[in-house]
Amino acid sequence: MAKKLTGACVFGQSGGPTTVINASAYGVIKAALDAPEITNVYGAAHGIVGIINGTLFDLGQEDPDELKLLLNTPSSELGSCRYKMADPEKDDTDYKRILEVFKKFDIRYFFYNGGNDSMDTCKKVSDFLEKAGWECRVIGVPKTIDNDLVGTDHCPGFPSAAKYVATTVAEVYKDAHVYDTGAITLIEIMGRHAGWLTGASALAKLSDAPPDLIYMPEIPFDMEKFLTDVEAVYKAKNKCLIAVSEGIQYADGSFVSEAKTSATDGFGHAQLGGLAAMLSGIIKQRTGAKVRGIELSLLQRCAAHLASQTDIDESYLAGKSAVESAICGETGKMVAFTREGEGGDYRCGIKLEPLSVSANAEKTVPREWINEAGTFVTQEFIDYVLPLIAGENSRALENGLPRFAKLKKIIAEK
Amino acid sequence: MAKKLTGACVFGQSGGPTTVINASAYGVIKAALDAPEITNVYGAAHGIVGIINGTLFDLGQEDPDELKLLLNTPSSELGSCRYKMADPEKDDTDYKRILEVFKKFDIRYFFYNGGNDSMDTCKKVSDFLEKAGWECRVIGVPKTIDNDLVGTDHCPGFPSAAKYVATTVAEVYKDAHVYDTGAITLIEIMGRHAGWLTGASALAKLSDAPPDLIYMPEIPFDMEKFLTDVEAVYKAKNKCLIAVSEGIQYADGSFVSEAKTSATDGFGHAQLGGLAAMLSGIIKQRTGAKVRGIELSLLQRCAAHLASQTDIDESYLAGKSAVESAICGETGKMVAFTREGEGGDYRCGIKLEPLSVSANAEKTVPREWINEAGTFVTQEFIDYVLPLIAGENSRALENGLPRFAKLKKIIAEK
Repeated sequence: MAKKLTGACVFGQSGGPTTVINASAYGVIKAALDAPEITNVYGAAHGIVGIINGTLFDLGQEDPDELKLLLNTPSSELGSCRYKMADPEKDDTDYKRILEVFKKFDIRYFFYNGGNDSMDTCKKVSDFLEKAGWECRVIGVPKTIDNDLVGTDHCPGFPSAAKYVATTVAEVYKDAHVYDTGAITLIEIMGRHAGWLTGASALAKLSDAPPDLIYMPEIPFDMEKFLTDVEAVYKAKNKCLIAVSEGIQYADGSFVSEAKTSATDGFGHAQLGGLAAMLSGIIKQRTGAKVRGIELSLLQRCAAHLASQTDIDESYLAGKSAVESAICGETGKMVAFTREGEGGDYRCGIKLEPLSVSANAEKTVPREWINEAGTFVTQEFIDYVLPLIAGENSRALENGLPRFAKLKKIIAEK
Repeated sequence: MAKKLTGACVFGQSGGPTTVINASAYGVIKAALDAPEITNVYGAAHGIVGIINGTLFDLGQEDPDELKLLLNTPSSELGSCRYKMADPEKDDTDYKRILEVFKKFDIRYFFYNGGNDSMDTCKKVSDFLEKAGWECRVIGVPKTIDNDLVGTDHCPGFPSAAKYVATTVAEVYKDAHVYDTGAITLIEIMGRHAGWLTGASALAKLSDAPPDLIYMPEIPFDMEKFLTDVEAVYKAKNKCLIAVSEGIQYADGSFVSEAKTSATDGFGHAQLGGLAAMLSGIIKQRTGAKVRGIELSLLQRCAAHLASQTDIDESYLAGKSAVESAICGETGKMVAFTREGEGGDYRCGIKLEPLSVSANAEKTVPREWINEAGTFVTQEFIDYVLPLIAGENSRALENGLPRFAKLKKIIAEK
């Protein structure tokens, strides 16, 4: 049994939001408010940036009913950031500032919710605090619709995005097959280096409305083969429904979409987008068919109305487990999921992984879960995703519209 | 009491599909199957085209449970068309063919589900049959997400699309406000000449997540004013969320999107699209801000998972009323909605309007329901739409995915 550590906690959200990152927030906040060891529960405004600036919300002053609405409120309610921490060996300004803020608010617990970049941030902060001799337990809570974190069976946020993608593709299939004239429809789905979310479009098969072709970043993209594939389906069916990952790359590793934009985000990743329009144009030129390109854009990561209840429950559990683990003495770890039982017997277990496992690493779809032609996923892939999207959420509504959490966000003073 | 007319009926779906056009189909089919006067219930494959070709499905052979699933199956299950009937004075080939098919199958009831172009088709067929002395009762069932039909309080299909737009805009608002950096987000919404659906984005206000600016076709578009509006909001809030109708037009009546494409659909309407990308580029150039353009595309007309139960119930009722009216002797009419009571007391009534009222006419948003600046709708607009989006649908699911109707579509032989 670890020694009892009493003090405040701070929680932050980072990176691209998901529909359920606030469910994890609620898991952390509720468990922290309930824990006798935790004196104050702070939320960082815009993740690590808020900690560096000392802009913290005093979450103890929030209405518990409003906090509970976080379970069905999409995006990052405390605000997010895409701030790349410097290597502390080269520039420790931010770290010193964090230490100062932690001392000022007596922060002994730090919970950070994000993807692999955020786990890296977590690890750097954790290492720095330890070196500086400030006792603080640091636990990462995973999230990403990309499902590309190493060390966990799947990532909170992915199941809801997958449910949205599969449902939407099934619905678009119905629309795209309505006329007796030829039509090709291409749907662009998020995923920079991993095809998990694009692959989830295959689940529309269970609604008898699947895409004909799926292109993921794991398979080197060949424009000529792509056009031949599309043409063959179109010739046979007079229709073709294609799911394409935003991150498809040529054999040399360059993004197919790259020609369209050279802007980059804060981490040096290329900003993707416009791929659907570009590919639609090329297909139209080749086939002469009517082609419609659809980019699911932000909708796939904020459609809380279609969130998987399994995902909400698990995301909440991930947040709660982070607090419980820290109180038990764990630090420098990320909460991770295990899969207990398969198919209808699926249950989600919790384990802890060292932060270093997830930091800056990316888990892609195994080659054997993609068919030989590289144009669809296998049954194993479908069996992996299917239990995760189970369960319809019971979100709060007013007048038939979503009732989101309304937080007071009172700035903490010290 | 009109004389009893015994014979077969045919039902067809036309134009762009909606999430609830199949609910109207179910209303027609169920009432027709239940009516002793109706000997056979046929469904036209791809609307009027299927009637001209004599390709009819024998709907009496369908499983009643599958037919019931039409209530939550998006798009036009029998297939749709965009076929412009010739003026019978100039070319009556199609009309003669229709008469032949009607005689062959002893069709005495014709129900057609569509927008203003379809009501025009309905009227032409009705007039021709009458002149030819073939007794047949013809009733139009309205549908359009655009809500632009004259003679009805609102159109089946609009409420569900409005619910989708309002919910999605609210969710995107949450996502678009997550970072502490500046961001402008523009959402392109369907609506060729009427801004009803784009205006419905204002309902996100009830989720405390409204667009800042709304641009509808009813107000002549001025690019300079638009950019000034956007800049002012962006300067004040560091964020700006804009809803734009695909059909916005300059004062001279030309579509803002027109420069992007010159393709037209079967009716000579300009095929719109690509506006979001175009305007985003222009805003980016002007403001230097990060700008994201989102086109709701087909999603807004096929998202059955978010259909308004009010809309489903009313669409079903419209179909059922068409059959009941025809049996009572009505013909050459369109089923229309009246509004009984306001706000919480809202109830939908049914009336019949001459087909000529809706044929080729378009109802736009009254100027007084748009604010003076032309950048938002008034409370009257919101009060008009709000009761229509009430009610969450209880769609059938299997494995967390939609279970659509599976029809056998057995071709009728005679």
